[in-house]
Amino acid sequence: MLIPAVIPFKPRNPKTRLSCILDQAERENFAEMMLADVISAAEGAGCRPLILSTEAYEFGDYRVLENPSGLNEALNDLLSNMPGPVLILMADLPLATSQAVKRMVTHSTDMAIVPGRGGGTNAIFLSSGRSYRVDYYGASFLKHMRIADERGLSCEVVDSFRLHTDVDEKEDLVELLIHGQGKSRAWLEDLGFRLLIEKGRVGVAREKKHEP
Amino acid sequence: MLIPAVIPFKPRNPKTRLSCILDQAERENFAEMMLADVISAAEGAGCRPLILSTEAYEFGDYRVLENPSGLNEALNDLLSNMPGPVLILMADLPLATSQAVKRMVTHSTDMAIVPGRGGGTNAIFLSSGRSYRVDYYGASFLKHMRIADERGLSCEVVDSFRLHTDVDEKEDLVELLIHGQGKSRAWLEDLGFRLLIEKGRVGVAREKKHEP
Repeated sequence: MLIPAVIPFKPRNPKTRLSCILDQAERENFAEMMLADVISAAEGAGCRPLILSTEAYEFGDYRVLENPSGLNEALNDLLSNMPGPVLILMADLPLATSQAVKRMVTHSTDMAIVPGRGGGTNAIFLSSGRSYRVDYYGASFLKHMRIADERGLSCEVVDSFRLHTDVDEKEDLVELLIHGQGKSRAWLEDLGFRLLIEKGRVGVAREKKHEP
Repeated sequence: MLIPAVIPFKPRNPKTRLSCILDQAERENFAEMMLADVISAAEGAGCRPLILSTEAYEFGDYRVLENPSGLNEALNDLLSNMPGPVLILMADLPLATSQAVKRMVTHSTDMAIVPGRGGGTNAIFLSSGRSYRVDYYGASFLKHMRIADERGLSCEVVDSFRLHTDVDEKEDLVELLIHGQGKSRAWLEDLGFRLLIEKGRVGVAREKKHEP
């Protein structure tokens, strides 16, 4: 049986920290491209994607569950009804590969986790969804480790930069332009984003739009 | 036979981007603590550390090679005399673990590489040192991939956030305080550094020094 991969997603006005370089319509597009990359990695690892959306939303033929509650409430509602294994993957991990996701879901521990940069949590695998409750925001990685400990769950920290790299800010686009292999990288390049190397530091720049 | 792990090191006035929170003597201390953590990870993975220093330097009983040339010149000099396998590890990877280093040195490809954040290169494993030449600075990861390609070397990108996370700036200390397991984390905590969680963002703060 395929393991469900729950992917929380916010279709409207996402990724506001990218507002300095992408307008709202572009950010909504970009978020969808990243979602497509995450879905592709999950499917390649033998998971069945389930999009958990903050509002009514359609994405191809994928199953979408709508829940306007906060991220924690929505996920914990869902987990409480999942006795079997489940993967929770953030939607802003465009470097995700099937191999990296496979390393998550093939663990024999009760739980596997990948931290995000800055103390967050990017991915959680649970051998039984209802054995756990999530607590995102702030230093959620430390909170999630503590919850595993309180519940007596064995937990492995999976050492992957591909799942560790979430895209929130302009500098994160450097990682995507260097290591991305999917749709979101191609989309960025189509929009004119390029690596910019100045004084030994690597950044990104957006080439001027050519007027027709 | 143990695989040599070459660790370039700058003993004097290192890590200047941390000047905002650490004075020069502290930065020199901190760089040594990180070096100790990297050495410990390399030894645990069955490597023999070889410190490549920009000036005369002693560190316990470890072998130190002094070479005041630039990083590329010093490393390429060394590589040209190494027909066998060799690992090059940066000294500012305090999250390195033996398991992560082992994933580098057990590859059957001609080369394995771990990118640093922002386009750099944090670790390179070569099955034959003299088959390669390094080219650090700027987007060195892309340069290193290109050199592998030009020389017809098979190359694997090792997916590790522990080796991907180099410590250059204040924000990087967050990663160390969350994921560090060695001497440099303990040293930072002794100095009064703590995680600081404000408005959902995680940072670091240094507690006031207590006057005696």
